[in-house]
Amino acid sequence: MADILNVATITTDAAHRVIAAAEAKAAEIGVPMCIAVADPGGNLKAFSRMDGAPLLSTQVAQDKAYTAVGFGMPTHGWHDFIKDDAPLAAGAPTGIDRLVIFGGGYPIQVDGANVGAIGVSGGHWSQDQEVAEAGLAALAP
Amino acid sequence: MADILNVATITTDAAHRVIAAAEAKAAEIGVPMCIAVADPGGNLKAFSRMDGAPLLSTQVAQDKAYTAVGFGMPTHGWHDFIKDDAPLAAGAPTGIDRLVIFGGGYPIQVDGANVGAIGVSGGHWSQDQEVAEAGLAALAP
Amino acid sequence: MADILNVATITTDAAHRVIAAAEAKAAEIGVPMCIAVADPGGNLKAFSRMDGAPLLSTQVAQDKAYTAVGFGMPTHGWHDFIKDDAPLAAGAPTGIDRLVIFGGGYPIQVDGANVGAIGVSGGHWSQDQEVAEAGLAALAP
Amino acid sequence: MADILNVATITTDAAHRVIAAAEAKAAEIGVPMCIAVADPGGNLKAFSRMDGAPLLSTQVAQDKAYTAVGFGMPTHGWHDFIKDDAPLAAGAPTGIDRLVIFGGGYPIQVDGANVGAIGVSGGHWSQDQEVAEAGLAALAP
Repeated sequence: MADILNVATITTDAAHRVIAAAEAKAAEIGVPMCIAVADPGGNLKAFSRMDGAPLLSTQVAQDKAYTAVGFGMPTHGWHDFIKDDAPLAAGAPTGIDRLVIFGGGYPIQVDGANVGAIGVSGGHWSQDQEVAEAGLAALAP
Repeated sequence: MADILNVATITTDAAHRVIAAAEAKAAEIGVPMCIAVADPGGNLKAFSRMDGAPLLSTQVAQDKAYTAVGFGMPTHGWHDFIKDDAPLAAGAPTGIDRLVIFGGGYPIQVDGANVGAIGVSGGHWSQDQEVAEAGLAALAP
Repeated sequence: MADILNVATITTDAAHRVIAAAEAKAAEIGVPMCIAVADPGGNLKAFSRMDGAPLLSTQVAQDKAYTAVGFGMPTHGWHDFIKDDAPLAAGAPTGIDRLVIFGGGYPIQVDGANVGAIGVSGGHWSQDQEVAEAGLAALAP
Repeated sequence: MADILNVATITTDAAHRVIAAAEAKAAEIGVPMCIAVADPGGNLKAFSRMDGAPLLSTQVAQDKAYTAVGFGMPTHGWHDFIKDDAPLAAGAPTGIDRLVIFGGGYPIQVDGANVGAIGVSGGHWSQDQEVAEAGLAALAP
């Protein structure tokens, strides 16, 4: 009987490249951001708060990464998932610790596996998404 | 006269049987889950996170068991209970620590007494309920 | 450049066998225990509180597993590690969140890799160690 | 007359250089580390957890940076500061949230001003200090 399973996990080097690519996009659109990368265990792997980024975003970026790794889906998927489900709409954002249901958190996928997640906060969530996606592109083949 | 009351409490052995039955149902429907059993004091009695279960469910399953033991009613009963009561609707999910108002948490009853609770998380709450009910059935006469 | 590394992680099935073996030893010595298994991310994988185990042990067992996974060494190694190092002796137990420096927590090793950890609490730490070691033996080749 | 004072604060770019220099030293001595940089408000500015760094170090590195910025002195200064002062020796490590009294946290100084702090964790604190000092050297004139 197999006693272990192997969990693919993003390296520190790859996490730094994801953050650098996200920072470049945030600079391009002129909105300073906080950017966090978590591993599949939900633990912080790398983080950057750009000069001028909102202070509250420090935690929100980390929570978005945590949320994205926690269910393996982007944070912006939660609103559609819960909006027509009254108990979840009323209870998920308050009842699930650190859950963020607006955009900016994405699983990081390599070869089809979720190897961690990125969380971005600092602008409107649509801008956060744009920056996060630029970060993910750093790992594209 | 009587200075004490006896609190009927689920045994560890029964808790393991509840979890095993729930795991079997979760495997059958193909959705890996986290399953928690709490005692009448709200304290964790037994827990299992199935391979591949969402990380966020680790805490949610425990909070569902805690909620179910906390008022002696299933978590899915909360939405109906509060939805037309404005102060509760606005304030209960946010104001009561660890309260979960969607399905997946149930009191565990033996001979009419609440002897603990089960909390399940990992799929949609309707799936969580199905798995939790399969767990409860392990104690049926 | 490799973007991922693979982390070997204990399966739920193996975690249950570890706990069952630990419970058998605790029953044999007549000291009810709490037994926790964590994965390499420090997240709870499986848990059991035996009937009659001390309530405080619920958290201590989890913290021992967390400590053991946190530095990849048994919790009883900490006392020797810090006792002649005044700043650590004064500062490690208080300054490192959830650190437990007495016996009962061990990394779980499979094929030389730390795949998680076990934490046991309920008796004297020397008894906790005995029970934890019986749990580890469940995975021996 | 003057209603404001200017707080000199490390830039994100400088924080990244500090972390990169610390990582290079950690790689040189073969001990993977967690490295955190905080700003004068005690808030996380940048962070990196090197592959293989101990999980517990994730928080300890951040707490060392927080401690160093909190009083503007290195964390290793605390032990001498409190060891012969009974109330402080008994009470500071336990009574001050996030206080770390062993080495690895330093204020970051630029032109004589404390502009933030670095916190390093992963090896013995003497190794953590060596790595933190290498990080600080990245800003030397």
